[in-house]
Amino acid sequence: MSENTNLPHVAGIGEDALQPLPGSRKIHVNANGGMRVAMREILVTPTPAQGTPGDNTSHLERNPPVRVYDTSGPYTDPEVETNVRQGLPRFRDQWIEARDDTEVLEDFSSVFSRTRNQDAKYSSLRYGRPPRPRRAKPSANVTQLHYARQGIVTPEMEYIAIRENLARANPDYQEEQHPGRDFGANIPKEITPEFVRSEVARGRAIIPCNVNHPETEPMIIGRNFLVKINGNIGNSAVTSSIEEEVAKMIWATRWGADTVMDLSTGKNIHETREWIIRNSPVPIGTVPIYQALEKTNGIAEDLTWDVFRDTLIEQAEQGVDYFTIHAGVRLPFVPLTAKRTTGIVSRGGSIMAKWCLAHHKESFLYEHFEDICEIMKAYDISFSLGDGLRPGSIADANDEAQFAELETLGELTQIAWKHDVQTMIEGPGHVPMQLIKQNMDKQLEACDEAPFYTLGPLTTDIAPGYDHITSAIGAAMIGWYGCAMLCYVTPKEHLGLPDREDVREGIIAYKIAAHAADLAKGHPGAQIRDNALSKARFEFRWQDQFNLGLDPNKAQEFHDETLPKQSAKLAHFCSMCGPKFCSMKISQEIREAAGVAEDTVQLIDVEAELAEKAREFREAGSEIYSKV
Amino acid sequence: MSENTNLPHVAGIGEDALQPLPGSRKIHVNANGGMRVAMREILVTPTPAQGTPGDNTSHLERNPPVRVYDTSGPYTDPEVETNVRQGLPRFRDQWIEARDDTEVLEDFSSVFSRTRNQDAKYSSLRYGRPPRPRRAKPSANVTQLHYARQGIVTPEMEYIAIRENLARANPDYQEEQHPGRDFGANIPKEITPEFVRSEVARGRAIIPCNVNHPETEPMIIGRNFLVKINGNIGNSAVTSSIEEEVAKMIWATRWGADTVMDLSTGKNIHETREWIIRNSPVPIGTVPIYQALEKTNGIAEDLTWDVFRDTLIEQAEQGVDYFTIHAGVRLPFVPLTAKRTTGIVSRGGSIMAKWCLAHHKESFLYEHFEDICEIMKAYDISFSLGDGLRPGSIADANDEAQFAELETLGELTQIAWKHDVQTMIEGPGHVPMQLIKQNMDKQLEACDEAPFYTLGPLTTDIAPGYDHITSAIGAAMIGWYGCAMLCYVTPKEHLGLPDREDVREGIIAYKIAAHAADLAKGHPGAQIRDNALSKARFEFRWQDQFNLGLDPNKAQEFHDETLPKQSAKLAHFCSMCGPKFCSMKISQEIREAAGVAEDTVQLIDVEAELAEKAREFREAGSEIYSKV
Repeated sequence: MSENTNLPHVAGIGEDALQPLPGSRKIHVNANGGMRVAMREILVTPTPAQGTPGDNTSHLERNPPVRVYDTSGPYTDPEVETNVRQGLPRFRDQWIEARDDTEVLEDFSSVFSRTRNQDAKYSSLRYGRPPRPRRAKPSANVTQLHYARQGIVTPEMEYIAIRENLARANPDYQEEQHPGRDFGANIPKEITPEFVRSEVARGRAIIPCNVNHPETEPMIIGRNFLVKINGNIGNSAVTSSIEEEVAKMIWATRWGADTVMDLSTGKNIHETREWIIRNSPVPIGTVPIYQALEKTNGIAEDLTWDVFRDTLIEQAEQGVDYFTIHAGVRLPFVPLTAKRTTGIVSRGGSIMAKWCLAHHKESFLYEHFEDICEIMKAYDISFSLGDGLRPGSIADANDEAQFAELETLGELTQIAWKHDVQTMIEGPGHVPMQLIKQNMDKQLEACDEAPFYTLGPLTTDIAPGYDHITSAIGAAMIGWYGCAMLCYVTPKEHLGLPDREDVREGIIAYKIAAHAADLAKGHPGAQIRDNALSKARFEFRWQDQFNLGLDPNKAQEFHDETLPKQSAKLAHFCSMCGPKFCSMKISQEIREAAGVAEDTVQLIDVEAELAEKAREFREAGSEIYSKV
Repeated sequence: MSENTNLPHVAGIGEDALQPLPGSRKIHVNANGGMRVAMREILVTPTPAQGTPGDNTSHLERNPPVRVYDTSGPYTDPEVETNVRQGLPRFRDQWIEARDDTEVLEDFSSVFSRTRNQDAKYSSLRYGRPPRPRRAKPSANVTQLHYARQGIVTPEMEYIAIRENLARANPDYQEEQHPGRDFGANIPKEITPEFVRSEVARGRAIIPCNVNHPETEPMIIGRNFLVKINGNIGNSAVTSSIEEEVAKMIWATRWGADTVMDLSTGKNIHETREWIIRNSPVPIGTVPIYQALEKTNGIAEDLTWDVFRDTLIEQAEQGVDYFTIHAGVRLPFVPLTAKRTTGIVSRGGSIMAKWCLAHHKESFLYEHFEDICEIMKAYDISFSLGDGLRPGSIADANDEAQFAELETLGELTQIAWKHDVQTMIEGPGHVPMQLIKQNMDKQLEACDEAPFYTLGPLTTDIAPGYDHITSAIGAAMIGWYGCAMLCYVTPKEHLGLPDREDVREGIIAYKIAAHAADLAKGHPGAQIRDNALSKARFEFRWQDQFNLGLDPNKAQEFHDETLPKQSAKLAHFCSMCGPKFCSMKISQEIREAAGVAEDTVQLIDVEAELAEKAREFREAGSEIYSKV
């Protein structure tokens, strides 16, 4: 990312990542104090109504645009010129300043940051001039949980309320949907700022928003809100560059990543993270132990609380929104993994287990947990309490080690809450379907409804190369049961580092899982998009069908493989069944023949009317192509 | 497929479809009367045990081969030379002849077949000389259900018992697995021929095996057996050739299709089907109304019972194993679809609805149902009672039309059973997760536990291009709840005709769903393959990990994208995390450090032993590469 390499917004990112999605436009809902809440609106064409058979005077029936949750930030807004060298607008700065409980520091508090930022060796990699860090004033607590418990509704909460509601209240969308089964979730018809506050105060939801990441558009993670997904990016020592990772982050948010975790483990982890955060419209999570281990040259035994603490502060002042902390991997639990088929499969968990064994000491993360809380609350970083002992195979699911750690995470949640630090809990992993619900139930109980954030779970081990699918099954189910955020799995899981295509595949698989869960919970308004797409499908509005889908490009590409001509976008069939066998076409003909116009649908008196209709039907012709 | 085009086993099929899967060999289990039951065995390399740290004298620990259900027939058997012009060996002929209740006819009974077979226009397309047809002797009933009810255990039942057991009883595999939750399924530890007979007699399972398809390897569909999957192939008027369809059939069975439905609707449907059946090791299903409609030039109103009847006989004598018959689409139900978002989405259903409306008459399929039974029992064709009114969108799920038809399918099941005709029931479609179980429960009740065979269901409508995933979620769940066979959905669903790659993606997605369901039901032995793969993964036996997966080629390809060298197949890491951060590697080091050898696993007395171990651990080095 030096001056003489290509800029990422030219090279690594690609023009295709910086366009609005096909048929979509960025809209902003205005709110108090000049707040503008970004959403995406998918424009939909009218229905070409055909009238009664033989009547060629077709008229048009309007279809309302569909408003969808938008994680892509300014990149898909043609009104905003983005430039990764300048980062995104810091629009949340004013809210943070208005609270007057933080101060901007002269320099970074982390020894590592100060040294690194002055090291000329890294200047070609560095994100211009990193912004000066902000921190709570002495003894202040700047977490959203702290405000919520005092009854304060923050601008972040207001933003979220509008964002979560989407267009539910729009009379265009008072469509029926199936009742859900919510397993104890409690989702109101309308999300109010006060509801957001109360859920955060209760610890049932978190708003990851470091005061040093004012570029992020506020979002919430909790079982009474839309199910969220996380996309992992990050280079490893073996492959990948900074450009690629920034490009992947933008790419992931384009397709719907609600948060992004930077799991980089390579050499330039500090600089990579700065580029990512400055350009990310979504919260960024990290696993700080990875970088701490880089600082001890990969030797777990050499990790110390001091190295770790400095790393936390380094990352806190860059703007990381949530930290995965594996403080539940306690010394006595390590032997519980000895009989396992796949031992410990969490990177952080295995590092900490190794440290515990090497020193025969309790984990320094566990011992220093309150010290960590002190740091978290000075920047409003949320805990993502890591499941270092999650099962890495079906055989190891729901075992003693896993649940021992979960109980500890419950204890730690109470400590975090004592400090008003926002907290979510990470979960497995590999779990067969019949054991998934037990995970959800135990988590809700042990962690007092703190949001659950699971990796999949994968429902079988036998499909390397397809683990986005083995895990989307488990993710959809646990999302339904109450999981608040689903960490994606790409097709490369277990095999290698995901590339751009893998990121897209993983994100879409997880958007499917999350949306299937919203539908199943009966989330108000969740079915609007399904209904709109199905209506477009039935009416052969092909372009609308593509555009309303999660991946318009792929849908169109698949359609065009066999029928590329523009005329096929108006055809009342596709290559799957051909014109004679298209059930949708026949079904439309039936509806017309039976005199059932779209707007005057009514049940027919079978005995009386059909004899007459039968005669009419045979006399009237029907059209295969709709009029342009 | 004329003499001067390339032979399909050279051109259309491709050498890659005619090789054993990597690391696998075909095996045959011998049984009574020279019966040889084909299975696949995946060979697994030994564990390179590393001994205690510092000890370089490694020894090897054997890992048993894993036996898996094999649907690929002789194509993956290097001992058998296959040639699509000669078809597969007709190994079941002797069993059928031994029963002495069928006769070989001089010519085809169908008028269409006789005319067509003599039409020189089609000679270049024709499969050599179609075998002479076989039919029940007058008044004989040759169905497996008929035999089963008389207490006869057929060779087909014996074959199935061995095939379903796999290697469960092998002492190598007395591994523990998680208890399942079976929702009323009743799967014995060992499948006996008598159990197969009793399930068939009860109507709870079917063995699709037309006496004119003696090439098929017997298989069973029922909730107390392994969950099966179907792959659809078939050309449409718009695209695809005979070669491609034969190639797709072989390709689908290679990856695991338990049955294949030929849904062709083009001009050469008769010849296409003959090529497919003569070369198929799995049962073939069709929807005869498609061909009947070709015969009336696509005009549904012109369909008659006579045309349909001749089509049934034509296909029966070619060897189709099961017929989808949409006899549940009754005239009074058609208006129930008027208010739907997507009307009628079953091709057969919409054709029949159109016919009913045009004539204002009850469906001729419903009226002639007993006549159809008479045909089915003369060849042993199974019913797949079509769900012509299945929902085509989330909005239409579980509606009045759908359940009215299901009740009718229940009535028809009783009639079919009166004739000893084997019967399964088709199901949806598009259903959100919370409504899936209701489908399964209602089907079990309405159809008295006749096997359920569902298309997905798709759990959301919003992902065209990814409907193999939206539907694998629903398929896994309904398989768990008791569905016996899952009809695959490819990524091209709703968009176009699947090509070879789509077929593979669809089949693998459904093998995942079916296997996840077997695990969740607690099917005895289901976890053997998961355990073996996970052990290989933990021990960095990369090649074993690839080979034990559902798609070894893709797994290896993904791995090799970043680490192509052979040495990386021995590396104790992959490109995902790199060497320092590999949790599996660290976890192995922990296990070794803690003195826990593979074969002497025991819990460690934490307080006493770890202090000593901690010292040892720090002194000993560890190896990143295993020895070749």
